[in-house]
This record gives sequence, structure tokens and C-alpha cells, in this order.
Amino acid sequence: MDKMNHSSAEAETETIEPLRYLSKGEAAAIETELLRDYRFGQQQLIEIWGQACALAITKAYPLNSLAKKQPTVLVICGPDQNGSIGLVCARHLRIFEYEPTIYHPKRSSHSLHQDFTVQCEKMDIPFLSYLPTEVQLINDAYNLVIDAMLGPDADCANIKEPYPGILATLKQVKIPIASVDVPSGWDVEEPSQDGINPEVLISLTAPKKCSMSFSGKHFLAGRFLPYDIQKKFELNLPDYPGTDCLIEL
Amino acid sequence: MDKMNHSSAEAETETIEPLRYLSKGEAAAIETELLRDYRFGQQQLIEIWGQACALAITKAYPLNSLAKKQPTVLVICGPDQNGSIGLVCARHLRIFEYEPTIYHPKRSSHSLHQDFTVQCEKMDIPFLSYLPTEVQLINDAYNLVIDAMLGPDADCANIKEPYPGILATLKQVKIPIASVDVPSGWDVEEPSQDGINPEVLISLTAPKKCSMSFSGKHFLAGRFLPYDIQKKFELNLPDYPGTDCLIEL
Repeated sequence: MDKMNHSSAEAETETIEPLRYLSKGEAAAIETELLRDYRFGQQQLIEIWGQACALAITKAYPLNSLAKKQPTVLVICGPDQNGSIGLVCARHLRIFEYEPTIYHPKRSSHSLHQDFTVQCEKMDIPFLSYLPTEVQLINDAYNLVIDAMLGPDADCANIKEPYPGILATLKQVKIPIASVDVPSGWDVEEPSQDGINPEVLISLTAPKKCSMSFSGKHFLAGRFLPYDIQKKFELNLPDYPGTDCLIEL
Repeated sequence: MDKMNHSSAEAETETIEPLRYLSKGEAAAIETELLRDYRFGQQQLIEIWGQACALAITKAYPLNSLAKKQPTVLVICGPDQNGSIGLVCARHLRIFEYEPTIYHPKRSSHSLHQDFTVQCEKMDIPFLSYLPTEVQLINDAYNLVIDAMLGPDADCANIKEPYPGILATLKQVKIPIASVDVPSGWDVEEPSQDGINPEVLISLTAPKKCSMSFSGKHFLAGRFLPYDIQKKFELNLPDYPGTDCLIEL
């Protein structure tokens, strides 16, 4: 009702600052603060983020909207944190009755990441031992690809195999790609002109600079973020609806 | 549509087995299996359960339904896992714009539990240094009490101070109590005749035997549970609606 009132509306307009898009350094600083000062655990954050990614997929691609008879999804997981978020996302998608298949070419030696892999294996989620180079096989088998490969920590100028090969394949697929946090191969601060072209982007915590002119469906998943961090980094996050852990920007 | 069809309806009726209520041993066996075989982390499970408890509170006591002007909630946390679930619940309630206050009389020496405490402290959630013995003060200050004290692992016959004193206070409060998993002071397998009388119970993973004739609002939060565990322990869990992580029984 307040929004109908002219003076309240004015007051509101004055206080709305634009959403902040993070540099690579700012994104890293927020994560360090969460882990060191707020004593969040990596396992805890990965679970929160992965679950939010699965919920974003259910919003962008509801089960009853999928083109194929089987609700198949290919989840490509990188070696580090972004990959573990993909593993958690796959596990929750299985709970939501999707049929995820995981491609996780390089496994981490950290037990933290290995545990997330075991959780998926024990849930009977299939793992591919290689990615078909014949793109048509991917287009035919899956409704969409979730790109949880490289994330914001990757050094885009020095991506090592097998990831350049996977990116070359993903540039050719015709089914939609949903990227986690930063599309693989993109710089955190610059969208890639000739890189992969995701239809959906799920920004974690706060959006990164590379997503400023993203024209696809853009979700933000970071509702758990303590208010003091939001203030300190002047994030100006939007109000999340109800009890949702994500919002479409 | 299938449900309209007579033969499908029959087939469906045949396969619906009653929800299983767990003994103390079964509850412990499921948790051991999750941790040891499925390699779930305690931190991860506590986050999942605590978040689900906060969502249950938003369903049972929506912000706009609270009797008091301020959306105050008193969260009483025990020394172990149940207490940490309460801490996570308080943190998410803060995010959902409730005003939780925590009473956490005995802190664990495990860094796992300490981290959850720090997360709440850094979110500026107030901690009480003692619980008022004057019950009217509690009735006046809070809309409800969340009982995250003793949980299923507690030895009810040997509850040590300060918990018997807190239970004596909780038996007198007039505001509603919402208990996490097992109402404090109850045996896992038997409801307590002269114990606390919660209005809401949030069962984690699967309901325990003590909740079989619970007449209050009863939520079940355990959607993340792998299908093989559900089968092995013949849990016969209900279908969770949409992407909800909990269901009202």
C-alpha cells in the first residue's frame, strides 16, 4: 500500500542504489570474509549454492516444459569448488525428479570435493567417462547442459586440457546451457565474445562484472549473505521474494 | 490424470504403505549410514536441517500472523547437534526477517558447533546469558519458543542442569513451542505425559516413534534423503510438494 503513496514512493526511489557487479578481487574478498571471519564452512557454502542452482534450474526449465520425454540433464563439473557446486546441484535435481548425468573429468584430491562425488555415486547418478565429440549425440540425449566447470577462480588465459576441448564442444551444442556463477572460459570481469553462450546464468552471492550485459535469464542466489557483508561491500542486493533463496534479475 | 482412472487408482492404493516411525536405533543407523557410506558431512546435514526448520517456522507462524508487534522468536539451543540445527534455524529466520534471540547455555568444544555459533554472533543475533525464571517475561517478549535442546541422542533419564530447569520453565510458558526432531525431555520412542507440550514438531529425516500420536502441527523435513536409504529402512515417505524441502504430515 505504501508504494501507492507519493511521498513514500519518492523516499524509496532515493534509497535504491544500483546492484553492484563484483570484480574478481571483490568476489574473492567476500568469500575469504565468509570463511575466515564468519566461520562458514566450505562444505556448508557449497551445499547452499548447489541447492540454489538446482532450484534455479527448476524455475528456468520446469519438468513439464522439457522438450525430451526423459528429464535428462548433463552436468559438467570442474575440478574445484565450482565443480562441487555442480555435484550438489545434480544431487538435488535427482531429488526433484530430473535425470542428471555427470561428466567430471578431473577429480579433486581433497576429501571435501570427493565426498560430494560419493554422494552422487551412491544416489545412482550416472557418470560419463568421456564427453562425446559428436555434438549431435549430446543434443539428442539431454535437454540442457549445466556448466559447473571453471568458475571465478579459473585463470582463463591458461585453461588446460580437457577443458578447452569441452568448451569447443559446448560452443557447438544446440541445447541450452546454464552456467554456474561465471560461464566457463569467460573472464570474471569481461563477457567473452567468442566463448560459450549460456541461456541461463546463476550468479552466486552477488553478480560478477562479466554478467553486466548478460541478456539471458539471470538468477542471483545469495540470500544467506550476512547483512554486514552486504553493507560493507555495498552490494545493494534486491529483495528476495517470500522465503526463496534466489531471485531472477 | 492417471488418478482418475480406476485401475491405476487401485494399483496406487495397493502400493501405499504407512509412513514408518523410527526407533532410536533406526534413527541412529540412518544417520551413521549417511555420514559413513554416503559421505555426507555433519556441517552439511546441520545446514540442510536447520534451513528446513526455519522454513517450517515460516509456514507455521508466518510473519504477518504473529501476535506481537516485533517478530521475536526465542531459540533454545542444546550443546550438541540439535543445538547447532537451532543455530542454523535462527540464522535463516533472521534472513527471513524474524528477530531471533538465542539461549545457548552450554557451548560445545567442537569447532563444528562453535562455527555455527560464530555465524549467529556475526549476524548480530542476540544471545541471552540466562533464561528468565519469571515465565511472564518470556510470554511478553517472544511470539514463540523454538526448542532445539536435547534431540534424539539425549538420555532422558539423566538430563543434567541447566536443562531440567529450562524444561520446568518451558512447561509453564503460554506462548507456543516448536520442537526440533524430538521434543526435549521426551523419549525418542514414547511421548512424555508430563513433559513439554509443543504446538509444532519438525521431524528430521523421518518421524520418530514418540510422534505417532502427536496432535499438533507436524512437519517432516528430509527430502534430501537418498532413495536407497528410504527403501532400505522402508520409510514410505510421502511425496514432497513441488521443490519444497518439507511437508506437513
